[in-house]
Amino acid sequence: MEWTRREVFGAVGIAVGTCMLSSCMRQETKTTQGKTGPDVAPWPYHELDPQTTAERAYLYHYEGHCMYGVFKSIIWQLAERYGEPYRSFPCGMMTYGAGGVASWGSLCGALNGAAAVIGLFASRKEQQASLVNQVFLWYEQTELPVHVPAQPKLDMEMPASVAHSVLCHPSVGAWSKASRYPVAGKEHMERCARLTADTARQTVIVLNEGLSVRVARPMLADEQVSQCNACHGRDSERRDALAGMTCGSCHSSLSDKHPDVSIKPRKPL
Amino acid sequence: MEWTRREVFGAVGIAVGTCMLSSCMRQETKTTQGKTGPDVAPWPYHELDPQTTAERAYLYHYEGHCMYGVFKSIIWQLAERYGEPYRSFPCGMMTYGAGGVASWGSLCGALNGAAAVIGLFASRKEQQASLVNQVFLWYEQTELPVHVPAQPKLDMEMPASVAHSVLCHPSVGAWSKASRYPVAGKEHMERCARLTADTARQTVIVLNEGLSVRVARPMLADEQVSQCNACHGRDSERRDALAGMTCGSCHSSLSDKHPDVSIKPRKPL
Repeated sequence: MEWTRREVFGAVGIAVGTCMLSSCMRQETKTTQGKTGPDVAPWPYHELDPQTTAERAYLYHYEGHCMYGVFKSIIWQLAERYGEPYRSFPCGMMTYGAGGVASWGSLCGALNGAAAVIGLFASRKEQQASLVNQVFLWYEQTELPVHVPAQPKLDMEMPASVAHSVLCHPSVGAWSKASRYPVAGKEHMERCARLTADTARQTVIVLNEGLSVRVARPMLADEQVSQCNACHGRDSERRDALAGMTCGSCHSSLSDKHPDVSIKPRKPL
Repeated sequence: MEWTRREVFGAVGIAVGTCMLSSCMRQETKTTQGKTGPDVAPWPYHELDPQTTAERAYLYHYEGHCMYGVFKSIIWQLAERYGEPYRSFPCGMMTYGAGGVASWGSLCGALNGAAAVIGLFASRKEQQASLVNQVFLWYEQTELPVHVPAQPKLDMEMPASVAHSVLCHPSVGAWSKASRYPVAGKEHMERCARLTADTARQTVIVLNEGLSVRVARPMLADEQVSQCNACHGRDSERRDALAGMTCGSCHSSLSDKHPDVSIKPRKPL
């Protein structure tokens, strides 16, 4: 049996067609022959513009909230520019981080999205931790939001606040106290959209520096963290606590039984 | 020009070959023609065996820690059984959740992995929240770990504790206090590996019920959550707090200025 050129190209076309959208096969699967693990090379990062990323994250927040906003603002620019493997990432899954995961108020979704992006592009544990630290410490210590969208969904004078925490619940609480706006209202949503933009911008700044130029941006944790960890942390004698979060954000007062009352963590709000 | 049958099949073979590993094209990309968002259909879930999942998660924890352990234990079974799109998911990124994200002590990585899996398989916000609630409330209220591995990496009598929190820092702290083992030691690592197994098992139980059989498993938050939210939550008059976490885990004491001292949240530990 012989086929005409048209039939051949038709057959090839069907075969290619079924695979077309993934023709630039996902790098990870290629390089590992079906293996996936922490030992696998991370996806390649390409430098992005921080301001463009912030503007996108703001808009994506109104599509799928904070974690989704930060994550998609970065991945989707790479998808548009380079196609696969970025294009096939199921970004929709990242909606789970909204409100500190399904409104539980735990880790801020914008930071969860930032850390997920960092996890995708930086494989070594030390590098991941260094990049995460730079975004998390910035978030804890900076008066936010600062982003002013090109076309605001809600045109308002936006009050800012310092979270002193990486958790959604105290972060939103601090802003609500500073702004006197209630939680779960349209002003709160606009605040989180702008905060998502700020976090996406900061993540790209850190990735551009850390993965492209290999320059670390030094940031220090609140001094009370090292003070508490001196007795409780992994390198102390007691070794009964594991945390990098600002202690006083939750431990605003300690028992009178604490051996040294002078080093009680202060409430930072 | 005409091609022989062998040449045709050869050409088709090459075309298929370049795409072979992704021949079952990623459902999301297919259905949305390159779009990705919260409106996109989630990936299909297929019922898994909870005990097999737990055993895998235990082993994967020693490969990439808690978030990675839960996430990969589920995705990788589906990858082995069904291939794409599961096989191409870059599971290595999930190492970021270790120790409450890069040892920050925020959201427990096992729960972050569980919520990420739920985000991948359940798209509707209400369904995501319902499934997350069932895993998070179980984690807050259950004495863990209970999993006994078939081949323990560290053969020991494992003390259990109730976290009363979804955060890594108080969860590890409660276990360290109950067990008298220090943090960051080999016993702590073994505890978290078994906790990862427990969380993966619970996630699969919840997914099997919620996505396969459509039966909800009712669980109630600690009563102090509704008590606090009655005055502070999104439906209250003050509307100055947003959280589902057990309040007393952080707020172990409140100011004397609190209007009703009788409803101070208690420290649950």
